[in-house]
Parts: sequence; C-alpha cells; structure tokens
Amino acid sequence: MASGTESWILMATGRTPTNIAVIKYWGKRDEALILPVNDSISVTLDPDHLSATTTVAVSPTFDRDRMWLNGEEIPLSGDRFQSCLREIRKLADDVVDEKKGIRIRKDDWQKLHVHISSYNNFPTAAGLASSAAGLACFVFTLAKLMNVKEDYGKLSSIARQGSGSACRSMYGGFVKWTMGRDAWGSDSIAVQLASESHWNDLVIIIAVVSSKQKETSSTTGMRDSVETSPLLQHRAQTVVPGRILQMEEAIRSRDFASFARLTCADSNQFHAVCLDTSPPIFYMNDTSHRIISLVERWNRSDGTPQVAYTFDAGPNAVLIAPNRKSAGLLLQRLLFCFPPPADDELTSYVIGDKSILHEAGLQSMKDVEALPPPPESKVKYPSQKTPGEVSYFICTRLGSGPRVLADESLALLSPTTGLPK
Amino acid sequence: MASGTESWILMATGRTPTNIAVIKYWGKRDEALILPVNDSISVTLDPDHLSATTTVAVSPTFDRDRMWLNGEEIPLSGDRFQSCLREIRKLADDVVDEKKGIRIRKDDWQKLHVHISSYNNFPTAAGLASSAAGLACFVFTLAKLMNVKEDYGKLSSIARQGSGSACRSMYGGFVKWTMGRDAWGSDSIAVQLASESHWNDLVIIIAVVSSKQKETSSTTGMRDSVETSPLLQHRAQTVVPGRILQMEEAIRSRDFASFARLTCADSNQFHAVCLDTSPPIFYMNDTSHRIISLVERWNRSDGTPQVAYTFDAGPNAVLIAPNRKSAGLLLQRLLFCFPPPADDELTSYVIGDKSILHEAGLQSMKDVEALPPPPESKVKYPSQKTPGEVSYFICTRLGSGPRVLADESLALLSPTTGLPK
Repeated sequence: MASGTESWILMATGRTPTNIAVIKYWGKRDEALILPVNDSISVTLDPDHLSATTTVAVSPTFDRDRMWLNGEEIPLSGDRFQSCLREIRKLADDVVDEKKGIRIRKDDWQKLHVHISSYNNFPTAAGLASSAAGLACFVFTLAKLMNVKEDYGKLSSIARQGSGSACRSMYGGFVKWTMGRDAWGSDSIAVQLASESHWNDLVIIIAVVSSKQKETSSTTGMRDSVETSPLLQHRAQTVVPGRILQMEEAIRSRDFASFARLTCADSNQFHAVCLDTSPPIFYMNDTSHRIISLVERWNRSDGTPQVAYTFDAGPNAVLIAPNRKSAGLLLQRLLFCFPPPADDELTSYVIGDKSILHEAGLQSMKDVEALPPPPESKVKYPSQKTPGEVSYFICTRLGSGPRVLADESLALLSPTTGLPK
Repeated sequence: MASGTESWILMATGRTPTNIAVIKYWGKRDEALILPVNDSISVTLDPDHLSATTTVAVSPTFDRDRMWLNGEEIPLSGDRFQSCLREIRKLADDVVDEKKGIRIRKDDWQKLHVHISSYNNFPTAAGLASSAAGLACFVFTLAKLMNVKEDYGKLSSIARQGSGSACRSMYGGFVKWTMGRDAWGSDSIAVQLASESHWNDLVIIIAVVSSKQKETSSTTGMRDSVETSPLLQHRAQTVVPGRILQMEEAIRSRDFASFARLTCADSNQFHAVCLDTSPPIFYMNDTSHRIISLVERWNRSDGTPQVAYTFDAGPNAVLIAPNRKSAGLLLQRLLFCFPPPADDELTSYVIGDKSILHEAGLQSMKDVEALPPPPESKVKYPSQKTPGEVSYFICTRLGSGPRVLADESLALLSPTTGLPK
C-alpha cells in the first residue's frame, strides 16, 4: 500500500455553488440512474452567498467511510452517496505528495477509507437546493483528492447519480443538463452554456418564505408525478424542448424579456404538473402567490418584464432582475409588502450583497416604513403589509463553478485527527 | 296588441338550482356563443339550499326591460342577458289567460317589455356558481312566461349563451354538457345522465372559505388560459374525453371510488391549467390546500376514497360523501380542523341540512371542542385548529331541476306595480 508513515492524512477542500433551474427538471425516466424526462437549464448562484464547502480526508488509519453534514455525523450508507463514491473510486488515479512523503497508487483507493465533512453557508432546511450543492461538492472534492483526470462533464454525470440537479452545480453561469439518450446515462450530463461573466448585470433576490406545512420531498413528488400526472409527459415531450431552444437563445443574446417570460412560465408549469399529481403536491403557498402577483402586476404595468420569478420544491421565491436598478425597485416593493417584523434589524432581514439595499435608499427601518406603495398599486394592490410571511431576503448574483480551497485553514477536518474541527 | 285592459300584469316565477362540475368546463372555442373546448359533467345541488328564484312580469305599461338582482336594480344591457332575451323572444308563443282576460299573441312579445327580479338563497359573492343558477332561472322563467314550447335541451343552449355552466342547471341529478360540433352551437346542450334519485345517498358539504384575494373572473381566466396555457388543449383533447366516459360509467354504476378519483383528479387538473396560464391564476388558497390534505390523508389511510373534493373558480371546497355516515365523519374532521370562532353558534356555522350534524353527535360547541383528532392524524397531521379560515359550512345533497312556483305569494314582483316587493 502507500509509502510513508502509516499515520498520514491527506485532505482536499472544495467549494461548490447551488443552482436554480429556469427550465425545470421534474420527472425521472430511470429512478436508479437519475435520468430525467427532459433537458433543464439553470443559473449558478454566487458561492459567496450560497454554496457547500466539503473537506475530504484519506488516511490508512481510517477504518470506515464516515460523513458529517454541518457538524453532525450522518449515515453514508444511502444508495446515492454509495454510487457516487463507487464511481469516483473507479476513476481514481495515483497521488504523490512529495512534501508529505505520501504515495497512493490507483488501486489503493479501493481499500482506503475517507472522512467527509460538508457545510452549507445557508440554512439547509430552507429549501434552497442544498442537496444539489452538497452532492456536487461531494463528488468534486473526492475527485480532486483522488486525482481523477476526467472532465467536469464526466463528474457531472456522477454527481447526477447523487442528486439529479447536482450535475448542474459543476459549472458556473448558465448550465444545461442534457437528458441524453443512452440507457446507462453516459450522455446525461451538464454542459456550460455561458459563464457568469457573459451576463453579469443580473441580480438575484431570494425570498425565504415561512412555511408551516411539511413539504413533499422532491424525490417522492417527482415519482408520484411521473406515475399519475396526465400532463407531465406532454410537458416533457412537447413543451420543454421548444422552451430549451428559446431559453438558450435568450441567454445567448441576453434578451431579458424572453428570459423572464420563459422562466416564469416554466416555473408555473412545473407547479401545475405538481397540482395535476395524485395526491396533488402544493409547494407554493399564499405568500408565494402574493409575490407572483406583485411581480406580475409590475411587469404588466411596465409592458415588459422587469423581474423574473421561479420557485423550486418549496415556497421560496427566486427573483431575477436584469440590473441593479431594477433590483433596487424590486427590493422596495418587496419590503413594502413584506416588511421585517418590528423587532428585526434590516441588516439581518436582508442578507448577502447589501449594497443593493443601500443603492435603493434603504438604510434603516425608517426608510422601509417611509416606502410609498408601488405606482402600479393604484389598480387593486393587495397592499396589506404582512410582517412574518417572509423570514428573510438574500441578495446575490450569478456565480462561478466549483473550486478547490487551497488554504488549509479553511478545511473542515483536522489535519491531525481527520475529524471535524 | 293584447286584449284585456291595458294595465294588466302577467307574471311567472321559477326556481333553478346551482350545479357543481365534477369534470370541469374551462376554455371556450367560441367566445360569443360560449362554446366549450370539452364536454363537462356536473351534479345539481338541492335548490332548497342553493338556488335562484326569478319572477318575470310582462305588462303593456312597462316602457323598457328592467332587472333586479337581490333587490338591487342592475343593467340588462350586457350582451349575455340580451342574447338570452332575444333567443327566448324568438321562441315565444301565444299566451291566453282566460281568468285574467289576457291574450298575448306570438308577435306581441317583440314589443312587450319585461321586468325581471331574481334572488339567490345563498351569498352571491361567495363564489358558489350564482351566475349559473341565475342565468338558468332567467331563461327558464322567461320561457314559462312566454309559453315557449321547446324542450329543455333547447333552453339549455340558450342559457349557455348567458353563462356557460348555466346550461347544466336545466336538469336535476347528473348532467352532461356536450360540447357539440356545430359552429352555431345548436348541439352544445345539456343532457341529463341520471336523475337525483338514481344515487340519492350522496351528501354534499360545502366549505365556504374566507378569502382576502380579489379573484380573477372565470370569463377572463378562461380566455387567458386558452390563449396562453400550453397544457389546456392537451387536457381538452386528450385527457377529458376519456374521463367523461369513465365518469358516465361511474355514475351509471354508482361506483363511488371511481367517481371520487375522477372528481378530485379533474378539479386538480383544472387548477393546474389555471397555474399554467400567463399570468398564473390562483383560485385555491392555503385553506383550500389544507382541506385537500385532510381528505387525501383520510382517503389514503382507508385505502379507498371516503370523500371527493372539487373546487371551482374560488377557494371554496365542495365535498361529496357517499352516504350520511361518511358525511358525519367528514364533518367531525372538518370541525376539528376548522372550528367555529369562539363567539359563533354552531347552528349558524353549519347551515343547510343540519340533521347530519346531529347524527354525527355534534349538538353544541362543547361537542366540537371534545372532538378527538382523526385517527389518521397520527401520521403528521396539520392539526393546528385554525378558527376563521372557513366562514361556514353548507350541508346539502343532490337536487332536482328547475320548476315553476305556482304559489303567487312567492313572486318577487308585485302583481299590481310590477316592481320588486
């Protein structure tokens, strides 16, 4: 087996962004391999605000594979973790660390155990695609540690087997997950359509919506939809292919009006399919509906879309503005309709990139209280101010793909014990 | 013109039930003639609890057509009233009232003016298909006054031009509106599938749900769906035809399990199409969703449907139980989850056929407070009791079609002035 002393620990730390689909993935044609019924397109979010960080350690002293999520040990026995781990091990290559005097041969990886510690810089339970970022980071960091030479497309197909949408977190900017045709899923991979710098004016505001309901997991919901919704196959086969082409063109030409129209329509159609499922699935709640109404009324009063909205398997709204000016106007509207609770600080209610807040002239709660109703509100606005419906807002932007954190002080595992710090 | 003194008034009073679709009508292929994109099937509700009553008077002293709804004069100038009035006048026949010495010739109807007064025995604004009952009663009562000899199928096609679903209120029991093929709509009529006595065990409980939102009118919503929903045509052409056949068979064989499954699935699909519309239409709210969850959980725990639910263009739930026993169990569950406000009387919170309440052992607020959680609630029940979400419940049943009220004391217009009493 490896040379050097038998107590060495080798580590790698990676950081991987979340992503939010603008053309939605909903429905698998193969449950085990996680092969989708249609292509999907996502935007990658800035990892500074929404990402997973994972440290993977290997040592001959480890007697089994172990994993910690946000500091808590979790079982690694699930099929999804196991298939990612197995696939990465197959691609592992020789690793030589001259400085530490470590030499691991390709075949050693089958016998060596790993410790994995992962951390999300945003609430896991908030329904913000934490599993996508987490699984992508799991695969990415293992691949780095094990010196996997394959390209990111190949890695995306491994991440896909952990959590479908995780494959789209392997790139920054705009990403397409092509459903592929191969029965084994070799061509069901993510490809980058454009990097984050291609359209860097976009601003993203996420409304984290309070919810009392227990939500249906997307795995269960998707399976129920495939089995029971008479509309799902029509969506997958007839509607989505056209939207994918239109969305690629909207992104290529930075055509925000088309981008917004497609994004909103596809979010609504995904939720329509959920409703057409038996039993029906409700991810959006009355607050989600109010946010949509606010955006739709604004968009229509202006004649052209000012903002796009999209909702995943939960009530949170992801709002995309074409530039900082629109984002400021959006934030004013959101804070007018959903002000922070009286005892809350504005700075803990709007997090992430706070410069948008300042540019919108919102320095304090006084400024929020002084906000006038939006001009379009003259026409029947549900302008009752309801604090408490939104937990907080995150201001962010498009972001880059996975990267290695070379600074060892950022590792989540101790270099001496291999356990969480 | 007519014989007799020139100050006579001739009147007729009719009563027409509301109906609720179990296979939904959503989308017109002809806006002016109100021709639908698919067949629909409804149940007629007991007119004792939900109906419109209309008195029509004719007199040579009336100088114009006038109408009152629930005591308030309303304009009769709208296209829909006008086309119904015009079509009925075309079919008017000779009327002779020997006792009163009145003789009206066929052609006189073109010159004579009418006064119409209509009244709903349930809240008009509550979204309980008041326009269906109202328009059907308008056409039915005018036809009686004018001695129209045509069958109810022909009358239904006239009522259809007033308000699409009104055509289904021309019969009791189970009614199908066949979309027809004729460009002029002559074959787009209602037919009775079975009378109310065919399946008279069914019990209907309506939850009138409180709503803050202004709702999209069904006329506007339907038009937007036809123009923008990519799923609507697929539903109309591919999904509904099969469901119509299955629903006819379920009704014929009184197969409640199939009836319930189809009813719930089609309600959900109609709302899915609304959500797939741009801008999306939300008729159901969080309370509607909670009622669905309550029913779905119960149905699934029992393995076979205990209750069906259906929602029209608003948040109110129409719940259909196979018999009085199930209806009692349903009422217990509903009152457990949605108890009346503390200061409310149970007898004003549950209206209509109160015998269900008594059979379920619910005589007083004390009985409601003592209700145990439903047995299926052990598995994650959103059992927070939330008074105020439901305004009231109406217990009712299937009912009969339109009829003439011969008792002149029930007329809504004065026999001497022709004005509302």
